[in-house]
Amino acid sequence: MPGQRMITFTTDFGLTEHYVGAMKGVIFTINPSVQVVDITNAVQSFDILDGAIAIAQAYTFFPKDTIHVVVVDPGVGGQRRPILVNAGQYVFVAPDNGVLSLVYEREERVQVRHITSEHYFRQPLSNTFHGRDVFAPVAAYLSKGVEAVKFGEEITDYVRFAAPRPKAAGANAWKGVVLKTDKFGNLITNFTPDDVPQIFDGSSQSFKINAGKAEVTKLYSSYSAGQPGELFAVLGSTGFLEISANKDSAARLAGANRGSEVNLVIGG
Amino acid sequence: MPGQRMITFTTDFGLTEHYVGAMKGVIFTINPSVQVVDITNAVQSFDILDGAIAIAQAYTFFPKDTIHVVVVDPGVGGQRRPILVNAGQYVFVAPDNGVLSLVYEREERVQVRHITSEHYFRQPLSNTFHGRDVFAPVAAYLSKGVEAVKFGEEITDYVRFAAPRPKAAGANAWKGVVLKTDKFGNLITNFTPDDVPQIFDGSSQSFKINAGKAEVTKLYSSYSAGQPGELFAVLGSTGFLEISANKDSAARLAGANRGSEVNLVIGG
Amino acid sequence: MPGQRMITFTTDFGLTEHYVGAMKGVIFTINPSVQVVDITNAVQSFDILDGAIAIAQAYTFFPKDTIHVVVVDPGVGGQRRPILVNAGQYVFVAPDNGVLSLVYEREERVQVRHITSEHYFRQPLSNTFHGRDVFAPVAAYLSKGVEAVKFGEEITDYVRFAAPRPKAAGANAWKGVVLKTDKFGNLITNFTPDDVPQIFDGSSQSFKINAGKAEVTKLYSSYSAGQPGELFAVLGSTGFLEISANKDSAARLAGANRGSEVNLVIGG
Repeated sequence: MPGQRMITFTTDFGLTEHYVGAMKGVIFTINPSVQVVDITNAVQSFDILDGAIAIAQAYTFFPKDTIHVVVVDPGVGGQRRPILVNAGQYVFVAPDNGVLSLVYEREERVQVRHITSEHYFRQPLSNTFHGRDVFAPVAAYLSKGVEAVKFGEEITDYVRFAAPRPKAAGANAWKGVVLKTDKFGNLITNFTPDDVPQIFDGSSQSFKINAGKAEVTKLYSSYSAGQPGELFAVLGSTGFLEISANKDSAARLAGANRGSEVNLVIGG
Repeated sequence: MPGQRMITFTTDFGLTEHYVGAMKGVIFTINPSVQVVDITNAVQSFDILDGAIAIAQAYTFFPKDTIHVVVVDPGVGGQRRPILVNAGQYVFVAPDNGVLSLVYEREERVQVRHITSEHYFRQPLSNTFHGRDVFAPVAAYLSKGVEAVKFGEEITDYVRFAAPRPKAAGANAWKGVVLKTDKFGNLITNFTPDDVPQIFDGSSQSFKINAGKAEVTKLYSSYSAGQPGELFAVLGSTGFLEISANKDSAARLAGANRGSEVNLVIGG
Repeated sequence: MPGQRMITFTTDFGLTEHYVGAMKGVIFTINPSVQVVDITNAVQSFDILDGAIAIAQAYTFFPKDTIHVVVVDPGVGGQRRPILVNAGQYVFVAPDNGVLSLVYEREERVQVRHITSEHYFRQPLSNTFHGRDVFAPVAAYLSKGVEAVKFGEEITDYVRFAAPRPKAAGANAWKGVVLKTDKFGNLITNFTPDDVPQIFDGSSQSFKINAGKAEVTKLYSSYSAGQPGELFAVLGSTGFLEISANKDSAARLAGANRGSEVNLVIGG
């Protein structure tokens, strides 16, 4: 199917109800031959940062022109606007609540439109489920070739927040945070190699990372290098420093979780 | 692919085993180009009412002629019959245990067949997994254009139950129930605007809803209208009155859950 | 789409992160029209036997030439090799850690290749996510018709383990194990009809099975034959003897789980 554009879902609707299925039904009713792929529907409920991280980690792996539907939308039915975003090689539909902030941060070319063309919405329009009634049909019409300009005017005052970055906390010390704990129990921090190049280029003699009750002093190149029960640092596939354990949950061993403080000191 | 009919799954098989994957493999072996979409595979185990609610909430959003496979089947291998149902614009394959009751209630034109043509079943036929051995292949052959009449004779004594409806409990009082708690913690009750129009058309001065330890006296038009920690009523996307909280779990705040009694009093 | 080969996923990556979505994005970027089907992505984290059971239970239900991607890979980034396996009518890509052992056991014709052609990998190659960077692109190129021989040389020293089999424990006694607990709470043991034909062909007067605090003396042909709260044996759809309960969790009732010892005595 040449030229066919793919649709992805990143939502907090979960898999235990019909919500995601209803959204797909709406899409297939409009465009029966489109491919719909779940990135994840298990974003933490109401958690815009968690959704922002999920889509930022995945969107670049999809084909050019993929339409990414990102719905973490605690403000549904209130004042927040639905938006249509062209960013780099991709298109996004989402509520204007900052859930695309990490996409905006990464892409140089960003155009944001306020979706106002209600004839593309499902009728009757519910006040509580715009995933089904607004974002799904807009994505479906986009996948059929309707142009972005048809959905509404460009805006520049869209909502964005800065990703949480590590902060200096002394001469050779930084304070960061655990962005999320993954299914394996890896503690994904907000430190990148750019923040602390000394650790990753081998120029530092030593470092110490504290998170929860963990004290980590080793950087390994893979999970399997760890000893049983040992906590260590590793550069994860997300580009962030992770605190991990070999075949075990670092979150459980460290007693840490999303939001836990991470203190890093170089040298010593 | 013009004329291609889609297949959906609504089951209690979960995503932690190979069950759903095996069903899809059976379908694709018979019809490699069909589209299969999960509505949900996380119906509460053995819970026919929960399955009935899930399919009833989702089936109308799919394209005309979609084949809905609904397998919540604690009676598998016993006396219950496999059925093929034409209802409105859709086709259903399911065990005859009432799981389609809410579909029957909604559709005027319902035709139910007892599936007896065993040459459409997988062989050897297991006694414990008719999702894989009966319902999946029947759906796949339907999607290839085999006519309903080929699968068995029409029956009229199929199993159906009445959806639980609120009951009068005094002059201006009703007793209802929580039908389910969704992923966000919304308590979805069995009250609809038809049951208590006074609340929804604004003609009533006041109302009081009790569920668990919650006492709710406000109706909002969206989740985001609530104050932190406040429990309120909202008309959900399912068409039912929900007890909800803004960015919080009403189920946890109210200490209520599926099956909890809901008492509603108008005026006062 | 004649000749189109399907891809399946059996992984421990879960559905709560972007991992599975990123793998699909990589595949669709290489082959936009391929069908990708999840068998399960909820294999127990790091648990090679659990993954081996999941793929062994499902792969034969898919069309000939399906490409099964099996990634339970605690050794990622270490010495373990990525492999490409032709076995029977199917193709597998997986880490060489034994996760395909139950496939090797079942198929007579098995050819294993060490995947070394790095130009098929994503670049830069991470050290922690070969699902995305190695196995997904290799599967995608296979689905486009690249021949197995292009990916690397055949090897014969691939890793395999023997499936856990029941052991004799006296004249008419055997000791087995619970292989897994499914979503319904069924305790799937490693006993098959070949191990204890007396129970299944009706030639034995009686038997007794102990697992956890359960003592089971009845074999039923379906789950629904059980009385409320009764634990019984049934031949599951997996081909293994299960300890089950009618509309209830046998695991909870028996206080048993994956790894629990199962003692079986014939006669009495």
